[in-house]
Amino acid sequence: MQQRVRVQNFTVSADGYATGEGQSLERPFGHADPAELMRWGLATKSWPGRTDAGGSRGLDDYFIRDFSHGIGAEIMGRNKFGPQRGPWPDHGWLGWWGDTPPFHTPVFVLTHHERPSFALADTTFHFLEASPADAVGRAAAAANGLDVRVGGGPTTIRSFVDADVVDEMHIVVAPITLGAGVRFWDDPSEFDDRFHHESVPSASGVTHHILWRRDS
Amino acid sequence: MQQRVRVQNFTVSADGYATGEGQSLERPFGHADPAELMRWGLATKSWPGRTDAGGSRGLDDYFIRDFSHGIGAEIMGRNKFGPQRGPWPDHGWLGWWGDTPPFHTPVFVLTHHERPSFALADTTFHFLEASPADAVGRAAAAANGLDVRVGGGPTTIRSFVDADVVDEMHIVVAPITLGAGVRFWDDPSEFDDRFHHESVPSASGVTHHILWRRDS
Repeated sequence: MQQRVRVQNFTVSADGYATGEGQSLERPFGHADPAELMRWGLATKSWPGRTDAGGSRGLDDYFIRDFSHGIGAEIMGRNKFGPQRGPWPDHGWLGWWGDTPPFHTPVFVLTHHERPSFALADTTFHFLEASPADAVGRAAAAANGLDVRVGGGPTTIRSFVDADVVDEMHIVVAPITLGAGVRFWDDPSEFDDRFHHESVPSASGVTHHILWRRDS
Repeated sequence: MQQRVRVQNFTVSADGYATGEGQSLERPFGHADPAELMRWGLATKSWPGRTDAGGSRGLDDYFIRDFSHGIGAEIMGRNKFGPQRGPWPDHGWLGWWGDTPPFHTPVFVLTHHERPSFALADTTFHFLEASPADAVGRAAAAANGLDVRVGGGPTTIRSFVDADVVDEMHIVVAPITLGAGVRFWDDPSEFDDRFHHESVPSASGVTHHILWRRDS
């Protein structure tokens, strides 16, 4: 089986922003409210960490529960990992996700600043400075034959798409506008020269965009 | 985690038939052509046994590759298992699926006629006469905590739905008419009193109906 590089459940506003302005410790998505962006996923039965009963088992739930299937490693940008910029002041920051990160695989954090690897439950974080192609090579080697997820944020995913190392993308357009922030795309059709593209409306109000390489 | 009883990827014609008239060894679906009914699945990258390159990675592929996720046992009617009727003439018939059945779990075949269990690769077939509730109990106990699939055919699935032991259904309506055969439903809305129901059109021309119990 061929290993693929995939983007999953990556959610943007109707005007194409994946995160707001002014990321900080208190506001990981800046002025954007992640609960609004991710409302479609939070409403599903399979949302990680759901403790209350209920939750949709409809179309959105298929995407949420597909998150970990066949994935052996994740690559993320430093801004997804934390709010710090520049050299690491210390190694106390272990990510946003508490004691049990939802990855359960090796995670490769792209950064210009060295830091030792560490493990948290069954997730291991590695830090590296690498081109998209080299990062994919590292992650694929650690993925035990499974696929590699490019997890975000928007700048990281764009750089991997622009380097032509992404095989599949699932991008969710939420029915909200943000007006400013970090934009992922101007228009959902802008990759159609290189990717097959299906857009599927969901009862929750989001539209699921599924893209896969034309040459795959 | 609560075990669920699920129907997956079960495909019917636009006029509600899941199989044609006159099932035989040569025509497992009677006058219906299974390649036409299942065209949507056969065109996906993840179709079991696909040997050629290509294949869609769009919406239909999500459903096909979800088939085995979280499933620990299958229940099927005797007509899904084979074309024989009445007492087993011998035990030579091992199902339609060759040396490697696509189930990879225990399979419980409902029949009024006793037959010893047998294993084929990582699938084990058991034969039992049981009510839907009792069959679900047996399969759930063998499912290692995972969900139970009710695999078909249409008469079996209907009897389980009518006995109110099915939690979720994914029914695919293909854009063909059969005119006769074994009908699954008169109308996709006929379970809406008991099930939430989303219908999702796919680029392939089929419509995915996703139903889950209102009280779940």
